[in-house]
Amino acid sequence: MAARSFAIGLDFGTGSVRAVVVDCADGRVIGTSVFEFPTGLGGVIVDAHDPHLARQNPADYLAGLKAAVPGALAAAGVDPGFSRDHVIGIGVDTTGSTPIPVDKNMRPLALDPKWTGHPAAQAWLWKDHTGAQEAAAITAMAREHAPQYLAVIGGTYSSEWFWSKIWRCLKVAPDVFAAAGSWVELADYIPAALAGVPTPGAVRRGVCAAGHKAMYSDTWGGLPSEQFLARLDPRLAALRPRLYDKAWPSDRPAGALCAEWAGVFGLAEGLPIAMGAFDAHYGAIGAGITTGTLVKIIGTSTCDIAITPATGDAPNVAGICGTVNGSVMPGYYGVEAGQSAVGDLLRWWVEVVCGGDEAMHAALSAGAARLVPGESGLVALDWNNGNRTILVDARLTGLIVGQTLHTARAEIYRALIEATAFGARAIIERLNASGVIIERVIACGGIAEKNPLFMQIYADVLGYPMLLAGSAQTPALGASIAAAVTAGSKAGGYDDFESAQRRMTTLADTRYLPDPAARRAYDDLYRLYRELHDSFGGVPDARADVPTLMKRLLAIRERAHGDHTR
Amino acid sequence: MAARSFAIGLDFGTGSVRAVVVDCADGRVIGTSVFEFPTGLGGVIVDAHDPHLARQNPADYLAGLKAAVPGALAAAGVDPGFSRDHVIGIGVDTTGSTPIPVDKNMRPLALDPKWTGHPAAQAWLWKDHTGAQEAAAITAMAREHAPQYLAVIGGTYSSEWFWSKIWRCLKVAPDVFAAAGSWVELADYIPAALAGVPTPGAVRRGVCAAGHKAMYSDTWGGLPSEQFLARLDPRLAALRPRLYDKAWPSDRPAGALCAEWAGVFGLAEGLPIAMGAFDAHYGAIGAGITTGTLVKIIGTSTCDIAITPATGDAPNVAGICGTVNGSVMPGYYGVEAGQSAVGDLLRWWVEVVCGGDEAMHAALSAGAARLVPGESGLVALDWNNGNRTILVDARLTGLIVGQTLHTARAEIYRALIEATAFGARAIIERLNASGVIIERVIACGGIAEKNPLFMQIYADVLGYPMLLAGSAQTPALGASIAAAVTAGSKAGGYDDFESAQRRMTTLADTRYLPDPAARRAYDDLYRLYRELHDSFGGVPDARADVPTLMKRLLAIRERAHGDHTR
Repeated sequence: MAARSFAIGLDFGTGSVRAVVVDCADGRVIGTSVFEFPTGLGGVIVDAHDPHLARQNPADYLAGLKAAVPGALAAAGVDPGFSRDHVIGIGVDTTGSTPIPVDKNMRPLALDPKWTGHPAAQAWLWKDHTGAQEAAAITAMAREHAPQYLAVIGGTYSSEWFWSKIWRCLKVAPDVFAAAGSWVELADYIPAALAGVPTPGAVRRGVCAAGHKAMYSDTWGGLPSEQFLARLDPRLAALRPRLYDKAWPSDRPAGALCAEWAGVFGLAEGLPIAMGAFDAHYGAIGAGITTGTLVKIIGTSTCDIAITPATGDAPNVAGICGTVNGSVMPGYYGVEAGQSAVGDLLRWWVEVVCGGDEAMHAALSAGAARLVPGESGLVALDWNNGNRTILVDARLTGLIVGQTLHTARAEIYRALIEATAFGARAIIERLNASGVIIERVIACGGIAEKNPLFMQIYADVLGYPMLLAGSAQTPALGASIAAAVTAGSKAGGYDDFESAQRRMTTLADTRYLPDPAARRAYDDLYRLYRELHDSFGGVPDARADVPTLMKRLLAIRERAHGDHTR
Repeated sequence: MAARSFAIGLDFGTGSVRAVVVDCADGRVIGTSVFEFPTGLGGVIVDAHDPHLARQNPADYLAGLKAAVPGALAAAGVDPGFSRDHVIGIGVDTTGSTPIPVDKNMRPLALDPKWTGHPAAQAWLWKDHTGAQEAAAITAMAREHAPQYLAVIGGTYSSEWFWSKIWRCLKVAPDVFAAAGSWVELADYIPAALAGVPTPGAVRRGVCAAGHKAMYSDTWGGLPSEQFLARLDPRLAALRPRLYDKAWPSDRPAGALCAEWAGVFGLAEGLPIAMGAFDAHYGAIGAGITTGTLVKIIGTSTCDIAITPATGDAPNVAGICGTVNGSVMPGYYGVEAGQSAVGDLLRWWVEVVCGGDEAMHAALSAGAARLVPGESGLVALDWNNGNRTILVDARLTGLIVGQTLHTARAEIYRALIEATAFGARAIIERLNASGVIIERVIACGGIAEKNPLFMQIYADVLGYPMLLAGSAQTPALGASIAAAVTAGSKAGGYDDFESAQRRMTTLADTRYLPDPAARRAYDDLYRLYRELHDSFGGVPDARADVPTLMKRLLAIRERAHGDHTR
């Protein structure tokens, strides 16, 4: 039997970084360490005057590396077969789009005493929405001049993404923009830091962030053209040469561990570092994604990942967040979709409306479980935080219909779960109709593991068995798989993702099968959901040039807010 | 100065009877006594297996007379100017339609030991909905064979009304039906009991109950024809001759106080007893109704009363509960409309959903008062208990649209108040469009008195100053006014309602004026409400023969309930 080998996976989340040491033979996690980001509120820098602002201190990332990697290695040391000499590589996944302004020596501007504490010099966290106007302007400009840019990202550029944030920085903090030698996604920054990459030009960028968030494609020669960027602002066009020309899939090394970090970790200098990718993408790998599998990472929101062989043109899936060659695995188009509020929708109901806590979540789940589909007479839209897929409209709002004077909390709780399941069904139907055929669904994330009612409703609404990933930490596991693949079989890893997944990922024993009677009832309810979905989320009345009711309601709301704050 | 004179008003509510002694000079209440009905749950006999059943024990009514009238007279005795000798009459208002099966000697069957405790032998309380199937069958039959019956009651016969209940009794308890010498509305029964009327045929029936609930009209010769009733059931046709041929407006005496009750009360035998009427109708008189005034009795539900001179044909107000000549005052058509859930809608939100109490009502009112119209981005339909006017559809359900993850309880609380105000506006617009022109609005009832936010929203939504009745007990005051008018000016009363109202009713000093800016915002929101109102409450899609979404949702619900109980 060959010597054991181990890979390190690093998962940079919103509030913390998790390091795991994984046995490459079976994917078992033998050491874990979590470092909570110290800056701001739960790791997030916020602004009391602007709810859309969310930044992160890059120093926290480096502190996290220093604490979590040695911590996980120390924890792994309990395994008598573990040795630091048998660590074969490091993989990294992060939130995104989380771009960081860096100087010409790859130092984040925020680490320069001149810019420390300046909000625009920090990492612009994925959920920062300050660039909403910029996103709208980018979408409008691309619709007119470069529709190909939008075709693969669902038709709308988001305020959460790379260019919206950089352009916003240019507008509100031109001094920070001018000082930035380049901008680097967190998913690319961490591998580059570990490799000691000396300049932004030497950073190997991953296609996951580039393709899904920065309108990168080999088809049109990389990032958006200078002509296009110049239409937005000439200074954005002038930035382009300082970004990157090429982005790489996830089986190519991002670099090799530099001497300095090797010393900190007590690992060998030169260890391969896998290309960085977003948490959902490596999470999908850790969940065991294959062609025909939809991986649902279900948390406060849901991220859906599918792959389809990159043998022809990219599938054109209208309203899907993105379709990028190699963004999940080389040789496949990665297809990303999502729902903006899932756990957050239930949290809103239980905590904001009903004033409850975890105990009430459990009580309402129990009450909801006693109902049969349709019994409450309720149907809801799951748009309290907008609709990411398939309508791509962040301004949409929620709707509940069917209440009586007897309608109970648990009934609405169930109706909200059902609404998210109907939203999930709309996504699967769109994928199937676009040729990305879904044959099985694997869920991972906290809700999937903890809420059997939720999973059963999904099985009944979707009409698929709901499988559960074997790991509770699929992103970190996926990152370690990327490390094992980057290291290769000769080093004790694997030569491709498929063979690594077969050995290193599992499914949980628990699975939820659709109940035929419930499924019939939900087929009927789903028709009503789609009717509400299409009429409230649909296009304005073209004849009369009247916006939809929901949009007119928002216009009234905005006017009222203006009145109230004047 | 003439000697002082006093009238007694008796208000039979759902849980209790209130007796008041009123000074005829100025309407001041100088003595009050309330008797809580002892039978059942808060005075209502219910059935754990049938939420639609609501009955009342007729013995409670008689016990209430024995306790409350002497109690109010004793309380009035504190006034040094009061004397029992100066009581000039008794007026009665009650809930309705609340029909009671009686034997041929006018004894309620429930008082016969043979029938004591039999649910069908009790009074069938207004909110008993066991006759839903019968109501639907009556509506269908009338649409086909006697549309004139429906024209003056808004187009739909209700399960709450006289014939639905009697027919239901015939079906579920034919022995009770067979034993009944006649059926008498509670509003007619109490005056008849006080007068010692010996047989059902001698009871003088009020046109208020007859016209609004029993399809009575002089136009077609009284109650529905025997031919029509025979189409429903020949035994109903056979009952007709044992009911009544003629009903009377409220200035005609129902009878004179009999010796037995005079002895119980310590009052003079032969005192005039006014015609009984429903609480809302006498409440409107107590609130000071005139042509051009809409009186809104706002409580768990809202009852709207208007009058219009009976100089021509009855106004045809589609979707209005009823238009009956003389039902409020002689010489006027009484027009009745209503909303099925007002206070109940707020109670649902605060108590059922948010799990709160009176303190939370106050807190949410305070929070809602800090919002400006439209600010919450919410609009709701007020149909959690169906829509009584103008859609006349008890099966409709609620709807809330516009929620985000930040939507707070107080915002939904305000949206629900606004929804009821929008419903109120739809009623006023319908009245105005039908020629029943509303020039001022007087509110009465607990919510109107206690909730300034509610009243201000109504003023802003309706665009009328919201006036408040001077009395907190307008039904009992109105009943005492009827007593004073029945007694006449020679006895120390009045010769007509108008002059009695001028002296005996007042408005509160508090009044709520529309705010122009709020009114503009609500004009915009009301347009959205009407769009939801018309599309969700409207007619099915005739081309495709598809019921509205709300009705299809109910069909799913009913199927699910069937599944669940099977």
